[in-house]
Amino acid sequence: MKTNRVKVEIITIGDEILIGQIVDTNSAWMATELNKSGFELAQITSVHDEPNHIVESLKLALNRADVVLFTGGIGPTNDDITKKTLCSFFGSKLIFNESVLQNISRLFKTRTNFVLNDLTRAQAMVPDDCTVIQNLVGTAPIMWFEKDGKIIVSMPGVPYEMKDAMSNEIIPRLQSHFNTPALLHRTVQVYGYPESTLALKIADWENALPECISLAYLPSSGIIKLRLSGLSDDVLALEFIMNQQIDKLSQLLGTAIFAYEDISIEQLIGNLLVAKGKMVSTAESCTGGNIARSFTSIPGSSRFFKGSFVAYSNDFKADILHVSPFDLEKYGAVSQPVVEQMASEARKLLKTDVAIATSGIAGPTGGTPEKPVGTVWIAVCSDNRMISREFHFGSLREQNILRATQAALLMLKEIL
Amino acid sequence: MKTNRVKVEIITIGDEILIGQIVDTNSAWMATELNKSGFELAQITSVHDEPNHIVESLKLALNRADVVLFTGGIGPTNDDITKKTLCSFFGSKLIFNESVLQNISRLFKTRTNFVLNDLTRAQAMVPDDCTVIQNLVGTAPIMWFEKDGKIIVSMPGVPYEMKDAMSNEIIPRLQSHFNTPALLHRTVQVYGYPESTLALKIADWENALPECISLAYLPSSGIIKLRLSGLSDDVLALEFIMNQQIDKLSQLLGTAIFAYEDISIEQLIGNLLVAKGKMVSTAESCTGGNIARSFTSIPGSSRFFKGSFVAYSNDFKADILHVSPFDLEKYGAVSQPVVEQMASEARKLLKTDVAIATSGIAGPTGGTPEKPVGTVWIAVCSDNRMISREFHFGSLREQNILRATQAALLMLKEIL
Repeated sequence: MKTNRVKVEIITIGDEILIGQIVDTNSAWMATELNKSGFELAQITSVHDEPNHIVESLKLALNRADVVLFTGGIGPTNDDITKKTLCSFFGSKLIFNESVLQNISRLFKTRTNFVLNDLTRAQAMVPDDCTVIQNLVGTAPIMWFEKDGKIIVSMPGVPYEMKDAMSNEIIPRLQSHFNTPALLHRTVQVYGYPESTLALKIADWENALPECISLAYLPSSGIIKLRLSGLSDDVLALEFIMNQQIDKLSQLLGTAIFAYEDISIEQLIGNLLVAKGKMVSTAESCTGGNIARSFTSIPGSSRFFKGSFVAYSNDFKADILHVSPFDLEKYGAVSQPVVEQMASEARKLLKTDVAIATSGIAGPTGGTPEKPVGTVWIAVCSDNRMISREFHFGSLREQNILRATQAALLMLKEIL
Repeated sequence: MKTNRVKVEIITIGDEILIGQIVDTNSAWMATELNKSGFELAQITSVHDEPNHIVESLKLALNRADVVLFTGGIGPTNDDITKKTLCSFFGSKLIFNESVLQNISRLFKTRTNFVLNDLTRAQAMVPDDCTVIQNLVGTAPIMWFEKDGKIIVSMPGVPYEMKDAMSNEIIPRLQSHFNTPALLHRTVQVYGYPESTLALKIADWENALPECISLAYLPSSGIIKLRLSGLSDDVLALEFIMNQQIDKLSQLLGTAIFAYEDISIEQLIGNLLVAKGKMVSTAESCTGGNIARSFTSIPGSSRFFKGSFVAYSNDFKADILHVSPFDLEKYGAVSQPVVEQMASEARKLLKTDVAIATSGIAGPTGGTPEKPVGTVWIAVCSDNRMISREFHFGSLREQNILRATQAALLMLKEIL
C-alpha cells in the first residue's frame, strides 16, 4: 500500500521553532491535509535560516520523496533567505514579475498605513524557472519548481497564508499532477485499556487484517484511538472490507469502544445531549471546572450545558450544594455519599435532565493511606438513576484532572 | 556565544506526527528547555517507525550535533521499534533489568485493572551498553548511550513522561556531562501590546543591549514574554548588567509590565492571595470555568480559591446568583450591571475577600451589531471596590476564552 503513494516531505525554515519560541503547528496541519488527500509524509524537518543547512536538507529530501514543501523564510527582511538559496541551488536568475507587484499593491490598498518600499518591491523578483502561484492573502509569492520529475514548492510560514495556498492551490495541483488514488480513514476509540493489554487483546484480529488496511494506535491519557487506513481505486470494495473489520473489532471489544469516529468525548456527549434534547449540569470538586471548560470549548454548548458549581471547598459543598455536613464529616469530601448528593443537588438547582459530580484527591498533597492521591469518586444521575464509582488514577495532578474528566464524561454517556 | 554551546538534535519517532493525528508539541517544549539550559538546537526531525529511516537520521544528526535526543517509539506494542533499532545500530544485546520491572510493578499497583503481561515484561529488556534511567511516571525506561564522545538518549513520546525525564534527569545529566557555563535568564512579562508595536517601542533599547545578552520575544495570546539570556563565567557581573537593562525596560514600559519572572498569571495571583491571606471566588459565563480551571491547576489552590459558579445560562445567573431578571432583560447578559451583580453575589455567597465575574460572546455565533463576537464584560470586586470593564477581543472562540481569562486575572491583580 505504502509504495503506491506519492511521498512528500515538509521542511520548515526558521530559527523561531528551534529556539522554542513557537510551536510548529503548520507541519501537523499540512501532514493531516496531505494524508487525507492520499499523499504519504516521509519526513518533517525543521532547520535554521542558514543556506547550507537548507540545501543539505533539500538534497536528502529529494532522495526520499517526490515532493518537497518548504514553509517560511520568504518574508521581505534580510534574515529570510529561502528564495536566494533555492535560486543558487537550481542555478536560476531572479526576474521581475509584474503580476506579483500588482498583487502586493492590491493587498496594500486594503490596509491602513501600508506603503510600498524597496523591501516589498523586492518580493516581486522571482526565479526565472519557477511557476509563480499568487499568494492572495499575503505579499510573498508561492514558488513551484519542477526538476527531474520532482516538485519543490516554497510557501510562506504565516499559518493562514500557508493554509490558503495549500488548500486552494498546492494540494489540487499535486493531485492532478500525480493522479492520486482515494484514501479512506476510520477511527475507533477505546477506553479503559492500557495500550499493552489492548494490543494483546486484538493481536489476532490485527495480524489477520487484509493487506490493503493499515492500523495505527494513537493513545492519549486513558483513551486509545485505533485508526484504520486504506488506499484503493475501488472505494466501495474498500468500504465493505473496512466495515467487516470494524464489526469484528466491535465484537472483540464491546462496550470498551465508545466512539466510531474521530471526535472528542465532550463533543460526542454534546451531540448526544442535543439529539435527545437534554441539558446537563456539573458539580466539580477535584476536576476544578475542567468538565465545564471542556463543554464550553464547544461552539453552541449553551444548547446542552446549563452551568457548573466548582465546589472547591467544603463550605461550597455544604452551603450551596446542601451536602450534609454530617456526611462530609463522617465519610469525608471524597466519598460516595458526598458525590451523590453533589450530583443530585446540581441537577435539582439547575433543573437539568442529568448531572455529573466529581470529588477526589488530585495531588500532589492531600493523600492518606486509605485515600491516596489519585482517588476520585464520580457520580452521574438522571431523574431515575444514580451511578457512582470510585477510581484510582495516578500521582500526577494534571493527569488526575484529565482522567477524572474523561471517566465522568464516559459515565454520563452510560446514563444517556 | 553560539559557537561555545553544545549542539543538540531532536528526532521524534512515530507515524502519528507524520499522518497529522497529533501536533508535535514535545519538540517545541524540549527546544525551549534546552535553550534555557544553555544548549543549541541544530535540527528537529520527525521520522516514521521505520528502522532504516531512524538509523539514517541518527547518522546525519551525529555529524552535526553532540547530543541526539529521541522521543517516541518505545511503547510495548509491535509498531514501537526504537529500542530494537538502536540495539542493532550499536551492536548491543538486550538484557533483563530487574529495576525496570520493579518500577513497572510499582506503577501498576496504583492503577485499577492493570496487570503485568508479556508485553509489559518485555519493557524490562534493555540494551546491555546503555545506562538505564528510571521512568517514574510510565513503563518505558529511558536509555542513555555514550558513543565516541556523543550522547544518544531514547525517551518516551508521551508528553508528561518526556517532560518528567527531561527536567529531572536528562538536562541535569547533560549539563554535568558537558560542564556547561552558567546561564542567566530573566523574564519580563508585558500585557496589552501587539508584538510589532512592542518591537518598535523597545527598538532603541534592544539595539543597545550589550553583546553578552540576547533577547527573545515569546508571545502567547495577549501576553508577550521578553526573555533576556546571558551566558558568562562571571555571574555577578552578568547579574549587574542584566538588572541595569531591566531597569531601563521598566522605565520604557511602565505598568504594561505585570511580572518580572517566568510565572503564569494564575500562579502570580495565587501567590499574591496566599501572601495577603485572601480567598477568591468566580462567577463565569463566557470563560466557562476556565478561570476556575486555571486556579485549580495549581497544587494547593484550595488555600486561596473557594469555588466558582459557571453561570452559562440566564437561569443560573438569575436563580443562583440572584442577578436581577429586569437587568438581564434590559441590558442583556453581556453588560456592566450583570457582571457586577455576578461578582458581588459570588463574593457574598462564598464569603470570599474578592471575586471575579465574566460575561461575553465567545463566538462563533451570538454576536449582534451592538455586541459583536469578542465583546466581554469583566468585573472584579473586594469589600469596598468594584472595577468593571468592557473588552473587544477577536472572532476566535478559544482565543476569546483565553484572553478574557487573562484580562480578568490582571484586573484582580489591580484590586489586590
